[in-house]
Amino acid sequence: SVNPDLASERQTPSFCVERLTALLDGGAEQTRIRRAVVEAIESDPVFSRENQYFQTQNERYEAAVRKAVHLQKRMHEMGWAENGPEYVYIYRALSGDVAFLLHRVFMRSISVLGSDEQVAKWIPLATQHQLIGSYAQTELGHGTYLQGLETTAVFDTATQEFILNTPKISAMKWWPGDMGRSATHTVVFAQLYIHGKCYGIHPFIVQIRSLQDHSLCPGITAGDIGPKMNFEHTDNGYLLLKNVRIPRENMLSKFCEVQPDGTYVRQGSQQINYFTMTAVRISLISDEVLMPLMKACTIAIRYSAVRRQSKLKPGEQEAKILDYQTQQEKLLPQLAAAYAFHFVNDYLQELFNRGYREIQRKNFDMLPELHALSSGFKAVITQHCTAGVEICLRACGGHGYSLLSGLPSLYTKILASCIYEGENTILLLQTARFLIKCFMAASAGQPVPPSVTYLAAVKHRKCPAKNKLDFLSPDIYTEAYQHVAVRLTSSTAAKLQDLIQSGVNKHDAWNQCTVQLVQAAKAHCHYIAVKNFAETVEKLETKAGIQKIMKHLCDLFALHGIFSNTGAFLHDGYTSAAQMDMVTASYLDLLAVIRKDAVPLVDAFDFTDKSLNSALGSYDGHVYQRLYEWAQKSPTNQMSPAYERYLKPLLHNTLSKL
Amino acid sequence: SVNPDLASERQTPSFCVERLTALLDGGAEQTRIRRAVVEAIESDPVFSRENQYFQTQNERYEAAVRKAVHLQKRMHEMGWAENGPEYVYIYRALSGDVAFLLHRVFMRSISVLGSDEQVAKWIPLATQHQLIGSYAQTELGHGTYLQGLETTAVFDTATQEFILNTPKISAMKWWPGDMGRSATHTVVFAQLYIHGKCYGIHPFIVQIRSLQDHSLCPGITAGDIGPKMNFEHTDNGYLLLKNVRIPRENMLSKFCEVQPDGTYVRQGSQQINYFTMTAVRISLISDEVLMPLMKACTIAIRYSAVRRQSKLKPGEQEAKILDYQTQQEKLLPQLAAAYAFHFVNDYLQELFNRGYREIQRKNFDMLPELHALSSGFKAVITQHCTAGVEICLRACGGHGYSLLSGLPSLYTKILASCIYEGENTILLLQTARFLIKCFMAASAGQPVPPSVTYLAAVKHRKCPAKNKLDFLSPDIYTEAYQHVAVRLTSSTAAKLQDLIQSGVNKHDAWNQCTVQLVQAAKAHCHYIAVKNFAETVEKLETKAGIQKIMKHLCDLFALHGIFSNTGAFLHDGYTSAAQMDMVTASYLDLLAVIRKDAVPLVDAFDFTDKSLNSALGSYDGHVYQRLYEWAQKSPTNQMSPAYERYLKPLLHNTLSKL
Repeated sequence: SVNPDLASERQTPSFCVERLTALLDGGAEQTRIRRAVVEAIESDPVFSRENQYFQTQNERYEAAVRKAVHLQKRMHEMGWAENGPEYVYIYRALSGDVAFLLHRVFMRSISVLGSDEQVAKWIPLATQHQLIGSYAQTELGHGTYLQGLETTAVFDTATQEFILNTPKISAMKWWPGDMGRSATHTVVFAQLYIHGKCYGIHPFIVQIRSLQDHSLCPGITAGDIGPKMNFEHTDNGYLLLKNVRIPRENMLSKFCEVQPDGTYVRQGSQQINYFTMTAVRISLISDEVLMPLMKACTIAIRYSAVRRQSKLKPGEQEAKILDYQTQQEKLLPQLAAAYAFHFVNDYLQELFNRGYREIQRKNFDMLPELHALSSGFKAVITQHCTAGVEICLRACGGHGYSLLSGLPSLYTKILASCIYEGENTILLLQTARFLIKCFMAASAGQPVPPSVTYLAAVKHRKCPAKNKLDFLSPDIYTEAYQHVAVRLTSSTAAKLQDLIQSGVNKHDAWNQCTVQLVQAAKAHCHYIAVKNFAETVEKLETKAGIQKIMKHLCDLFALHGIFSNTGAFLHDGYTSAAQMDMVTASYLDLLAVIRKDAVPLVDAFDFTDKSLNSALGSYDGHVYQRLYEWAQKSPTNQMSPAYERYLKPLLHNTLSKL
Repeated sequence: SVNPDLASERQTPSFCVERLTALLDGGAEQTRIRRAVVEAIESDPVFSRENQYFQTQNERYEAAVRKAVHLQKRMHEMGWAENGPEYVYIYRALSGDVAFLLHRVFMRSISVLGSDEQVAKWIPLATQHQLIGSYAQTELGHGTYLQGLETTAVFDTATQEFILNTPKISAMKWWPGDMGRSATHTVVFAQLYIHGKCYGIHPFIVQIRSLQDHSLCPGITAGDIGPKMNFEHTDNGYLLLKNVRIPRENMLSKFCEVQPDGTYVRQGSQQINYFTMTAVRISLISDEVLMPLMKACTIAIRYSAVRRQSKLKPGEQEAKILDYQTQQEKLLPQLAAAYAFHFVNDYLQELFNRGYREIQRKNFDMLPELHALSSGFKAVITQHCTAGVEICLRACGGHGYSLLSGLPSLYTKILASCIYEGENTILLLQTARFLIKCFMAASAGQPVPPSVTYLAAVKHRKCPAKNKLDFLSPDIYTEAYQHVAVRLTSSTAAKLQDLIQSGVNKHDAWNQCTVQLVQAAKAHCHYIAVKNFAETVEKLETKAGIQKIMKHLCDLFALHGIFSNTGAFLHDGYTSAAQMDMVTASYLDLLAVIRKDAVPLVDAFDFTDKSLNSALGSYDGHVYQRLYEWAQKSPTNQMSPAYERYLKPLLHNTLSKL
């Protein structure tokens, strides 16, 4: 039986929930496949995450390895292939709580960077798990700036080997997943030296543990880097190399080869490498960033519909906290953002696929735009969704703070996405560099990529809105976003030029503009997100109330962005104070409208109770029972030695006097 | 030896670090006492926090109990009294990582709410730890709204007892610290019923565990609520009461008494109760909120001075990340906020002491203002500092994400401060209610408390700044903040009146204004914080560079607030776009100025390495060595059963083929 407070929320949705689910999945057939996978995974006790919040880091690691091994068996039994339609759903159904994810990166790097012979040798071994791979790039002292890596690989012509070393502590490999305890092999990135000359960073396959007994190989020091904010299931590792010799054939050599006499040969184009980073950034958005936000929204909104606290009016029953405007203002914009970024993800995927087809035709023209968009959106979406999950957590008060709510682990995990695969500030500055370049080109009348043609159209108009309803027009708000993006880009370009013309070194000038460049990059992405959402809504089917509710969410996403960042829109008078008051009024009105469909909108994400793993977010809304039953199973309810050791002596010291 | 990159930062501070430390401590004598306490605590291995990041919740609890018991012994040996000058520093030196904190709340509640006889009976027992107390107010279904608590206490005239019950699951006590495993007694808040009539919430002393063997008393079900985002050392508990009988004397009866025949007598003023909440909110700011932010700033800024990444100019050495404008823009405003709120805390303490003196003279006039300020600042400071710690964490990239950085635990702990002792949104709305009331009174020419007299002075002037240097004038920016606070309060008051005049029920009207009311309350607190900082700087000694550097920080705090919230200042044209560009220019200039003193400014907080407990924040800056040495001790570097159980079978399955 469903908690009546939650049941009532589902009685009259303005749209068909199942149809929206299908839209999010990309079709009803996808929904069917997904549900089948989820069912298969969740009915298998080995994959259970029920005890996760009670487990130590060691227990989490062990469970993740167990799951990874079991998964191989299950995939075979189910006939699921790594490139099959089910694959994406398997990882999602496991919530990523499984080992050997870096083993996949190991394989991908060999596929992309290895010669045909290397692919032929290593990929079958890796596929059959005759070895376990990792990917060792980041060092203790080096992350963002790859050229700064300090690990060395010196070619020894006499033995036809590379000799790998960690010359100092900051050069120690640090963070690679699966490397701390599991991996037998890893791809090590190191500075290549031949006859004393440095040729820069290259990838080398290095065996680190014995295939017989898993002991560390000679010259290898490796282990686990210890406790982290999340990812307890992953054995992120460290690696010290001391005169480790590997055969010449172990340098991945699709693009660069060292010949037996030490001749260095560069071959083919490395631009595809660049493309790989883009692919990774786009691919992480869905599972690592959107899913956590969607889960957090589901948990917080369902909880807010059953939690009653204080009274809206004297004499009435205590109100659902979802009925408070402040609570709506916390949660509903996060819901709108989840939908907005889902559609951005579709847009990026499509752009990526187009880019990939072009590259296969040796046309690399789309790469700069694709890099700028994937970098900027990786940063903007991870930042926005991380903040969103935190808001959901805090909006659930004390119960949100319990691990049993599921929200803390969603938060501590999504937070990492702001750092890995490119630190967000660095990425935004890459987007900004592209914007400045395109702005200059566009100003000079040169052609620029499609996503930035708007930079050429510098209009000094004013927002034409006359009343609050005008701000529900996508043309009105999209143009406002566009105006802000152009203004921030052009003003920062002007500042940059002024500084350089006044004699400041161009690198110093760039550094002095970076705070504003970051703002410009964010504004660009925000504009594209709003525009894309509006265009997506335009094309949706009008049936079953789908388009209407999506239009509301699009409006909310756009107006929340203006309401939260009024200065950008007011700055040059594009929007007047009176218009800003209209924005506020429309925005607050929308909260009340969307509140009515809030629960159906999260139901459409179609998470099972097991995938949410939350005492607050279950479909039936029996929050308090679940918290109580679950808490009773906590190891903290076992007998503690603290009583006999400390409490009893303390209390009994003078017990007789009581 | 200190890392040269860190040593160079300390060579030419613009001010005397030791003198600033003394200023923060409230005098050199206080610094001396504090250091003596820290030395005594940190040299005692029982109090070590070194293994904290490796421990399970059960281990953390046991250690906290051990420390609490040991502390009693040490305090006796050292001659430290609970009301002595050392006391505040003891808790701080332990970083709060100790049990029986709720035992102190138990004692305070008896002192405040108990009759003289009750105080005489229970306080000595509690002081000598002949019992361990807790404080059971919050229920599974009830936190913010005390009147909604559901636990019942029915008076039985026949036996002269109260019968306590948990009538339904949502009425279960949930969260009380020290209650899950340790406490023998607790103060239970319950609805009092006499002869079938409800008299509202009252406090009752209830024994929950045997003093002999610690078993649960008849009718009691209690345990630990399980894993949380932090506070692993605390046994937050649950409590179910089933026909638990306690003697009539166990109702705390300073203000209300039930006589033997069931007559209910109310006596004395309960306003002091109200005052207790205020005291708690103010008292938590220093240790629970400012200390974590100061620690996070120390860690992140020291790390940013030794971490080198990428190049500012080609051909140069990689740059310290502290030299990047974007990094300065993340960290330095947090540093300025730490100082700003330190001085707000002084201001609140002084106001509180004045209020306390007045109350002792039976003058309660200051209570509403004190309540409004303590509520608003509790919310604003916890919110601001929590965000600040998160920024510090993220600014340290991957290493910030390791528990060994110390930052994750600072974050997960300070986050709770946004929720406990009054959820922040609720508190801000209380401040807003006060503001609206005072604004109405002031508009009608009635007198209002000192902190809000400015509301009467509605000026429609424009900001007089003519160039960017004008924005380094406290008068200019303080007045801008004041203007915004008045505008937001007055416009929301107007909206509220309009809604009511248009026929909207006043409670609905209030709810429809709450998003804006929260903004007004924040603007009020922000204004007071800026004004107070500016006034404090004015009074500082000009010697030793103290006033000058504090002036820079005050400017930064003020301009960062404007820069981050430009819309509020631009809205009605008080500040023009050209002036906003001046703000931005001055703000960015200040970052470069304060960057030079960033390390001395965190050194002045005078944290020891042990108190920071951070691989990134140590005084000597040997970050990578510490991370490596510490990680090697992690339990995740012990042998895992995962190899024998899962990895070996996987790898060996086909090992022969390799």
